[in-house]
Amino acid sequence: MSDTKVYLLDGGTLVIDGFHVFWNRGPGGEVRFPCYAVLIEHKDGYYMFDTGYDFDHVMRVLPFEKPIQDKAQTIPGQLAALGLKTDDINYVINSHYHFDHCGGNKHLHKACTICHKKELEASANCQPFEHLGYSDLTFAPDILKKKNAGKELPPDPALDMFTPKFETITGDQEIAKGITLFETPGHTAGHYSLMVELKNRRPMLFTADACYTKKNMDMMCISSFHLDPTESVKSMKRLKDLAEKHDAELFYSHDLESFKGYQTGANFYS
Amino acid sequence: MSDTKVYLLDGGTLVIDGFHVFWNRGPGGEVRFPCYAVLIEHKDGYYMFDTGYDFDHVMRVLPFEKPIQDKAQTIPGQLAALGLKTDDINYVINSHYHFDHCGGNKHLHKACTICHKKELEASANCQPFEHLGYSDLTFAPDILKKKNAGKELPPDPALDMFTPKFETITGDQEIAKGITLFETPGHTAGHYSLMVELKNRRPMLFTADACYTKKNMDMMCISSFHLDPTESVKSMKRLKDLAEKHDAELFYSHDLESFKGYQTGANFYS
Repeated sequence: MSDTKVYLLDGGTLVIDGFHVFWNRGPGGEVRFPCYAVLIEHKDGYYMFDTGYDFDHVMRVLPFEKPIQDKAQTIPGQLAALGLKTDDINYVINSHYHFDHCGGNKHLHKACTICHKKELEASANCQPFEHLGYSDLTFAPDILKKKNAGKELPPDPALDMFTPKFETITGDQEIAKGITLFETPGHTAGHYSLMVELKNRRPMLFTADACYTKKNMDMMCISSFHLDPTESVKSMKRLKDLAEKHDAELFYSHDLESFKGYQTGANFYS
Repeated sequence: MSDTKVYLLDGGTLVIDGFHVFWNRGPGGEVRFPCYAVLIEHKDGYYMFDTGYDFDHVMRVLPFEKPIQDKAQTIPGQLAALGLKTDDINYVINSHYHFDHCGGNKHLHKACTICHKKELEASANCQPFEHLGYSDLTFAPDILKKKNAGKELPPDPALDMFTPKFETITGDQEIAKGITLFETPGHTAGHYSLMVELKNRRPMLFTADACYTKKNMDMMCISSFHLDPTESVKSMKRLKDLAEKHDAELFYSHDLESFKGYQTGANFYS
């Protein structure tokens, strides 16, 4: 099989306030930001790191985040553009279970789901101030049903026959050759960042929500959505150190400016 | 000596964003809120709980909080209106060491300072995201000088001959008959709320920054300034339980609507 390739799958955009992006700094006002999934074509199979948000979910639960996402920006749409089917994906890795990182899991019926042990536990038993973050539980139908016992759920054809298997892990882990997860908690209980080593370029270090944007990193300013801000700061420093140690390039999760410079769709990294 | 009396000393107002008052809820936009000190006339002496902000400090370090405070609203001004001198105060209790709760300490040269052990430590060694909160260190000239070694500090006549003695405590403590401190951490490492029992009315339970406003309590929504949000939620629940258990009335720290109904200046509670 060929060398590892990395595709960034554009999943549309959302809006939050500047005080959410830069905790207690701002400035305030609407900030529109991208969400994307990372597809890794690897000799051991297709891995997907995060799966963006589900448009219908956001419109139902958090319409104030003003989603903009066309059909081509859904997980099935992005995969189709690469000539892939949703059943081609072998593994889904979730950095964490906030709705804008796991909304597309439900389309990947054949994939094994890899996540931090603490994160799966937190998604089922979150703090009150995290309830909007953990509002899309379709990635784990068992948890979804348990949390909504007795309530009628909106119909969702993608959930039919979706019975994901989970493989929970802890600590830093090289889950396949050149694909390494680093613990970066704080934003959530069991947050992972991901590094992918490639043949022809520097490693790619995906911060996920341990660092939304380059400006957050430059200011060492965490986002307003967090479980433990002290841990969040440590994780941001850890990412900076990891990038130096591995001569890796940092890829931020929600940085519109940086995202414009990223290669997306068929323009893979290798 | 007469029965215990409680005076609320109006210390002026500040402005923060609605996203700071109601973490991740908002709505955004400027919110002006009061700061006040609590003076307790007790048979064992005069106790002051918190001392508001120092106008010059805010104008120098956080002018964006737009302080409005006239001379009558300073600690010396408020005491003078009651016929008291700053040297009459025997004890200062600080809920925590954010600048808007300890700015007047430096005027109280004869007072012994009571605070949580962890809070004094935190003020000297805070997290990076807490640096504006802990920006006024005049309450502890030793810490102030150590943190600013080599730097020239703005001249401050109030600091001349101000050598406060600290009495650090931990746990819940009845520090004088009917004056009880309850641990309510989360907003900061060593935050205390205060209950005062009076002869002619329900106990007064001063939340300090464990709960800014009645609306925060009603929504169980903490403020955006915090060290540990999970602890903050627990502390807010604790205050609610304490109020029920002791049939105490909750007095919020930064609630303009509630403050309008409070008795201030010479209109004491007893």
